[in-house]
Order: sequence, then C-alpha cells, then structure tokens
Amino acid sequence: MKVINNIREMQSFAESFRKSGKTIGFVPTMGFLHEGHLSLMRQAKKENDVVVASIFVNPTQFGPQEDLSRYPRDEEGDRAKCASAGVDHLFLPTAAEMYPEPPSVFVSIEGITDVLEGAIRPGHFRGVATVVTKLFNMVKPHRAYFGQKDFQQCAVIRRMTRGLDQDVEVIVLPTVREADGLAMSSRNSYLDANERRRAAVLFRALKAGEELIRAGVREPEQVRQKMRETLLTEQGIEIDYAEVADPDTLRPLEALSGRIVLLIAVRLGTTRLIDNLLVL
Amino acid sequence: MKVINNIREMQSFAESFRKSGKTIGFVPTMGFLHEGHLSLMRQAKKENDVVVASIFVNPTQFGPQEDLSRYPRDEEGDRAKCASAGVDHLFLPTAAEMYPEPPSVFVSIEGITDVLEGAIRPGHFRGVATVVTKLFNMVKPHRAYFGQKDFQQCAVIRRMTRGLDQDVEVIVLPTVREADGLAMSSRNSYLDANERRRAAVLFRALKAGEELIRAGVREPEQVRQKMRETLLTEQGIEIDYAEVADPDTLRPLEALSGRIVLLIAVRLGTTRLIDNLLVL
Repeated sequence: MKVINNIREMQSFAESFRKSGKTIGFVPTMGFLHEGHLSLMRQAKKENDVVVASIFVNPTQFGPQEDLSRYPRDEEGDRAKCASAGVDHLFLPTAAEMYPEPPSVFVSIEGITDVLEGAIRPGHFRGVATVVTKLFNMVKPHRAYFGQKDFQQCAVIRRMTRGLDQDVEVIVLPTVREADGLAMSSRNSYLDANERRRAAVLFRALKAGEELIRAGVREPEQVRQKMRETLLTEQGIEIDYAEVADPDTLRPLEALSGRIVLLIAVRLGTTRLIDNLLVL
Repeated sequence: MKVINNIREMQSFAESFRKSGKTIGFVPTMGFLHEGHLSLMRQAKKENDVVVASIFVNPTQFGPQEDLSRYPRDEEGDRAKCASAGVDHLFLPTAAEMYPEPPSVFVSIEGITDVLEGAIRPGHFRGVATVVTKLFNMVKPHRAYFGQKDFQQCAVIRRMTRGLDQDVEVIVLPTVREADGLAMSSRNSYLDANERRRAAVLFRALKAGEELIRAGVREPEQVRQKMRETLLTEQGIEIDYAEVADPDTLRPLEALSGRIVLLIAVRLGTTRLIDNLLVL
C-alpha cells in the first residue's frame, strides 16, 4: 500500500490510472477506522482496479462547539486496517495543503440540508460537500463509497454529484452494527462502559418504529412518539430528533406510504450519536 | 467539427481523449461569437490536442430584471466561426439537460464576489461558478480559456479552481477591441449606431485613468474622478462604477502601488457595458 500526502501527486496517480484504463474506487474517511469503513474498502476492492482511501479530519465540517479537537485519531492502526482491507493508495492530505488559505469557495446544497443534521449543525453539510468535491478532484474516482449510517450525508452527496455533474458513481453500503445493534462509529470511542451499554437503545428505538409501521400504523406522529418513548427508557439520553422522513428529500412525512426513513440523533453524556433505518 | 448535445456523450468523449493521452483545451461561451471568443479558440488550438467549445446561455447567471430573454443568439453563424477557429468538438447542451430539476446545488465564492459586478448583479457569480464547474465536469479540460474583458469573472474562476482543486489550468487572454477601443462583447449588438459611437468612451476613460497613474498620481480617488469625468463627456451614460482595484481581491485600492486594475461598468440606453484595464 502506497501512502500519498501530496495533492499534486494524488492527481497525477489518478490521471495515470485513468489513462491506463483502470477504474478507481474511493473511500473518503476521517480515520479511526472501524468495520463500517472496512466494508466500504472491501466492496471498492471488488468493484474497481484500484482502491484509494483518504483520511482527513475536515475542520470545515465541525461547528465551533463541536468535537474537532478531540476527534479520535490512530494513524498507525488505520494504515494497517487499510492495507488489510485491500487499499492500494492511502491518501493523507494535510490541513495546510487542503486549506492553504482561509476557505472562500464553497459547495452548498439547498433544501435537503436545512433539516435534521443540517438544522442542528449549521454549515456542516457545506463543509462536507466542499471537501468531498475537493477530494473527488484529487482522486478522480469512478466510484465513491459511503456508509448508510450517515444517511443525510449520503443524500446530500448524491444530490451534489447530480447537480454538479460530477462523473462519479455514489455507492451507499449498509450500516455495520455491533452485536447489540449499535451502529459502528468512530465517535463510539467517546462512550464509557455504562454509556456504551445504553447506546444500544438507538437501534431498539428504530426497530420499534419500524415494527409499528409494519403493523400498519399510518400516523407518523405515532411512530415518532414510539421512538422517543423507547429512547427515554434509558437514562441520560437527550433527543435531538427522532424523525420519520422522505428518504430523498429528508422532509418529515405527513403520511406514511412509499419509502420511509427513520432517523435518530441523541446526546449521551458528551457524545452525540446518530442512526437510521430504511423502511421500504 | 463534431457537435455534441448530450452530457454523457461529452463526458465519454472527454474520457476517451484523456485515455489516449490527448490534452483538452476548453472555451466555454454563451454564443453570439466575436473575435474575442475566436482568439481564445485559436490559442486553445495551439496549446492542446483537442479543442472543445461550448455554447450555453446559462439562465442561472442572469438576474430577474436582466437580458436573458433577449440575449443574442446565432447558432448557425457560431458553428461556422467555431469550425474556422479550429474547434474540434462543439458542445451545445440544452437547458433541460443542464438543469433537469430546479437548481439546488451551488458553487459560491466569498469575498471577491461581493463587489463590482457581484454587488450589482446578486447571484451572478454563483451562477457562473456553478455552471463552469458543471461544464468542467462534462468536458474534463486540461486548460480552460477566458477573456480578460470579464476581469472579475476570471478572478472568480481562478479562485474557484484553486479552492476546489479543480485540475484545470485557467488561461486568461487579452480583451480584443474594435478599432475605436470598444471591447468586443456579444452585448454590443444591442447598441444602435449612435450608442455604438458613444460606447468608445469606456476605453477612453480607462486610458485616461491609466495616464494619470503613469504620470505619478497616487490618489485612487483622483483616478476614479478622471474616469467618471471622461465617461460623462458622452450623453446618456449612467455609471454603475468606475473603480481602481486590487487585481487579485477586486477590493477598491486606498493607495496606488503594485498591480492595479481599472474597471468600468455603465449603462448606455438599455445596454450594460463593462471594460477594464490592467496597469502593471
């Protein structure tokens, strides 16, 4: 596995792969890799000639009160995991190279970003869309892989590639979960043992919501209420949202029909956790 | 010369050129071509293996009160001009394909776009940056050519390619002028004979400003005043701005030293005209 730190070098590798007819699969990450990331890399390996993974903790997608400074890092461990998952090129750009001047150029997506995570984390998706566009211009992938755990992010990136005609196929793979259902996330490392045990309630709440829908409930408010009640069976859970939404627009649903996504965000101690479940 | 109407087809041509090691020079235009556009195409021909020109009158860069509906068009004439200037592929995307849904994804540039044209035409540069990004993702050029007549646009696009790491070299070529100094522009076709004669005052005002600087004047306000006085020697000129600015930031200069750009925008009858002069 080759490690690349330099943007120009990354672009020149990408060009040479494309020139030689090789397809590039790309897995952008913020590092502290877990099984969810590795599942993206393995799938990218199956579908492409070359797999590029990037690790970059992007400052512009964190709010001023958020966890940028304490975001977990483990470069050595990550390298080993990437190599074992079949990554050919690990791209580790520095913040100084990514943002050599104060950012003044932004990719923004309207509509889909003003609800849920976007409402609670203003500027977050603008930071994500901008850095993903920059990374796409560096790595020049044919396919890019994202985890469904960040459901709204996936919708934003799909909308973005379509709106800007980025010649990249966006592939979203299922959330990988711990045995008790907790969605894998780098931020789970913030949880102490007691919080970790309680965190499984997110998935239980999603399943309870799904069960109501499968049982024929057609009132979104009943489903929201059920998810909230389930979440509050554990102590110390503060709910940011427990929503029933349209999977394409992320708008709250007023009636249940067609495709539905259940989305939850909570704070547990100092940790913020999100999860979601598609109900088809 | 091959004509391409379809985005996917354009991307697939672009990919095949890149695969075969051919460089792509790109001249994006809004059509109604004049000698300024043709100079870009000829230069692109000299510097690249393949020249792609596009014609697309981009609705999102026009304000609601602007001249979108009457913007001049001459597809037949333009085709002949492109062919004669060495264009290999003429890309004519339709509005329906460029914007299949109401635009919700935008590229915006802060700072440099809130003065001059950006102040008078809110949203204009967001429309330009977004459509140029889209076109770059379709044509995948190695080099893109723009005319200095749209000085602020060139600065915006340079800033954009840098900020988004677009792997495109932006090349700006000198303004092509009529015998009396009027900068070539598709919008000159709006002028009647009398207005056309008076329009030459823009260049005279720029030269008058330059002359003051060359004579040692160091007060920007004196230069602005001189340009305004010169413009007002012709009847019916309404000045939007006559500015002395930093060529990189487009900010008004408070003292004259280093590189300077003089920029003028006026309305003459129903026609809006802009011009500029770099003083090095």
